Amino acid sequence: MEKDTNFNEWYNDIVEKAGLSDKRYPIKGMNVWTPYGWKIMRHVDTYIRKELDATGHDEVCFPLLIPETEFKKEKDHIKGFDSEVYWVTHAGLNELDVRLVVRPTSETAMYPMFSLWVRSHTDLPLKIYQIVNTFRYETKQTRSFIRVREIHFFESHTCHATEEDAQRQVEEDFEILGKIMEQLCIPYSLLVRTEWDKFPGAYYTVGLDTAMPNGRMLQIGSIHHYRTNFSIPYNITYEDADGEHKHAHQTTYGMSERLVGAIIGVHGDDKGLILPPPVAPFQAVIIPIISKGNAEPVLKEANKIRDVLEKAGIRVKLDDRDERPGSKFYDWEIRGVPLRLELGMKDIEKNVVTFVRRDSGEKGTISSEDIVPGVEMILEIIREGMFAKAWKQQKENVADIDSLKDLPERTLRFGWCGSEECGHRLEDENNLKLLGTPYIPEKFKGKCIVCGKPTEKVAYAARSM
Amino acid sequence: MEKDTNFNEWYNDIVEKAGLSDKRYPIKGMNVWTPYGWKIMRHVDTYIRKELDATGHDEVCFPLLIPETEFKKEKDHIKGFDSEVYWVTHAGLNELDVRLVVRPTSETAMYPMFSLWVRSHTDLPLKIYQIVNTFRYETKQTRSFIRVREIHFFESHTCHATEEDAQRQVEEDFEILGKIMEQLCIPYSLLVRTEWDKFPGAYYTVGLDTAMPNGRMLQIGSIHHYRTNFSIPYNITYEDADGEHKHAHQTTYGMSERLVGAIIGVHGDDKGLILPPPVAPFQAVIIPIISKGNAEPVLKEANKIRDVLEKAGIRVKLDDRDERPGSKFYDWEIRGVPLRLELGMKDIEKNVVTFVRRDSGEKGTISSEDIVPGVEMILEIIREGMFAKAWKQQKENVADIDSLKDLPERTLRFGWCGSEECGHRLEDENNLKLLGTPYIPEKFKGKCIVCGKPTEKVAYAARSM
Repeated sequence: MEKDTNFNEWYNDIVEKAGLSDKRYPIKGMNVWTPYGWKIMRHVDTYIRKELDATGHDEVCFPLLIPETEFKKEKDHIKGFDSEVYWVTHAGLNELDVRLVVRPTSETAMYPMFSLWVRSHTDLPLKIYQIVNTFRYETKQTRSFIRVREIHFFESHTCHATEEDAQRQVEEDFEILGKIMEQLCIPYSLLVRTEWDKFPGAYYTVGLDTAMPNGRMLQIGSIHHYRTNFSIPYNITYEDADGEHKHAHQTTYGMSERLVGAIIGVHGDDKGLILPPPVAPFQAVIIPIISKGNAEPVLKEANKIRDVLEKAGIRVKLDDRDERPGSKFYDWEIRGVPLRLELGMKDIEKNVVTFVRRDSGEKGTISSEDIVPGVEMILEIIREGMFAKAWKQQKENVADIDSLKDLPERTLRFGWCGSEECGHRLEDENNLKLLGTPYIPEKFKGKCIVCGKPTEKVAYAARSM
Repeated sequence: MEKDTNFNEWYNDIVEKAGLSDKRYPIKGMNVWTPYGWKIMRHVDTYIRKELDATGHDEVCFPLLIPETEFKKEKDHIKGFDSEVYWVTHAGLNELDVRLVVRPTSETAMYPMFSLWVRSHTDLPLKIYQIVNTFRYETKQTRSFIRVREIHFFESHTCHATEEDAQRQVEEDFEILGKIMEQLCIPYSLLVRTEWDKFPGAYYTVGLDTAMPNGRMLQIGSIHHYRTNFSIPYNITYEDADGEHKHAHQTTYGMSERLVGAIIGVHGDDKGLILPPPVAPFQAVIIPIISKGNAEPVLKEANKIRDVLEKAGIRVKLDDRDERPGSKFYDWEIRGVPLRLELGMKDIEKNVVTFVRRDSGEKGTISSEDIVPGVEMILEIIREGMFAKAWKQQKENVADIDSLKDLPERTLRFGWCGSEECGHRLEDENNLKLLGTPYIPEKFKGKCIVCGKPTEKVAYAARSM
């Protein structure tokens, strides 16, 4: 398994060997979440819920199916999704009068209800979210967590009185993003997508992109400001304090199971997964080191340490299988457990536990009395270290270029005059995707890389995953 | 809202007024889970996960869509579901080669994968579950949580080496059931369904039924023993210790959002919902009793108590809206908050908090210093009281009958010779559903209520919800 030389093969191999997902399900791109992978996803969801709840979002669950009549109300939106939705046309032995779309995203399911829920300015802001699966008929090659046809994701939807309030929501979304990513140890860029690449129906879209080791950028989520583009066709209006009826301003924010794909790609190494401690199904694994005659005292102490750590809320596994320690090390390295605790007679005599960090390979000992604060501290150091290293990679991956010749396999940064013509030429002639312009402005003075006109606008591009 | 005189109207009214679900979604029977209702469902799910995890079940997530070719492998199964499944026939602008069923239950999604996962006797038992939404094209009148077309549920699926192992799993399922129901305060009967009413493809089915106040029985879940009925068509085999290849024995267990319907129906009263403390979004609500000039000290103390309770892990809401206390009482009674805490200057002077139990109306005081253990104790007393009262109702609802004349609106218990002919006659001529025979045998000596033959078999019937 060589990550640097063949990232794609390495990735597929890890997903299979670590038991994250089974892609042998008889529909291509619809994979089975096996227990280990699903546990990681559910820990990710826990942090998403925590941050959305803390900012006053209410969790709801909307129906999966959307009547075609509702789906078609916003014209750009349906144009954007027409070729990639699944249609339910029959129920039982009957053909349906109105066909039903299997949710590709829930604007068109939610907004007819929002028009009933939002009446007065006192109903605003309305902030809701749901964590569900969504469906896209992908025609490109599928890949676990990264390009699938059934996608686990969260989507938050908000309504506001004014464009400025909606804009403040976008800013809050960035704060939420920051807090979630601290736990997942995933860095990101905030890039305002081009007009031709924004979400169908949006006023503007900010793409959230993470650099993968092969130099490509993985879009892990997006934040959209809709202005009144949906509230007009869906008739979401409120009465303001003066009795005037106005259309609500809306935003949405979503991230998907690609977060799991990013965790794999950003952190893994040739030995397997490396999981950030906050989302690891097991944060520590205890391996008893047994030699002749000492099985009983070693296992007794190992069980004691497991109980103490478990009681403190640390997710810990005692691997007492009848196997060689080396083979256990190998198994848990593949599965990315952040911290290995080894315990043999020598450790017990010295009243310590030996630890090995999965991220750095660093080895040391913790005094048995301080096992809880010791493990907690090392897990936190691992988390911080993984996050810092990932940000460094994300930044180093950017290459400033002033010519389109001999493009490196990295994220490219360059001057762009901002014209659609130059944008399309850049993409078509170089097999690149123009990711957009930085949401947080970056100082730049140079020339458009396509037409050569002087510009102060900088843009990013990369090959897409 | 009169529960006794018009249960159906009362039920619909409560669902709407307590904000549990919004049925104005533009597809009949597919309702929106609004925040309060979804919180209750998620607490129910938490207890389900807890008990399934504790008994060695692994959580997974299987795809929603099932190819028609897989769906049709077990003949009784497809016959049972043919008239009530949704079909995806198109994706994007293309017609699919193989139509896809939207999961009505996941046997046919899971078992092709089980045939890959189960190889050797060391892979057994295989015990997995998922919590997902499932879809049935209901043609009868729909009702929130009780008869809907998109159903939130859990399903556990197991594979075992022998029929006896599978039978032990059924027994473990009853233990799991008991522990969940203690928290939800819902009583239940275990009735072995008739041959013509068992799950399509099952060897036998045990229905889990709860009596509703109108005398009808609500099936809240079921447990099935499949023997090898599915493992043969799906080719789920294992190599035993002797190298022989055998078919696995399987079971399943599922309960749905009907649990929420049962909570509403069993516990509610004319004032609204009464929620069991373990699943209540707010277990206690604090109402400050403010009169002229004392808003500040009362609110300060109320905030303090809220913080103390919250820190102790109690789900508490401080209702500091600018409304009359009576109107707040009314709101939280509708929403079923188990415990109301009132706090005025008199309470503060006496260093107490006044409490009112939602279930019994009982009033008293708790010393402010003991607020955490005091609230915890009362919540536990409420839970025990609600569970005991509900079991009493469940038992009192059963009427022993020896004639089919003037049937009471209750669950009926009577002798049955066991013949299909008498069973069908009983159902057809009396507009009843034969619920089956008790899983735990009940002593009986009498006559078949239809043909009059002597029998030692007792059966139950009721009008269905």
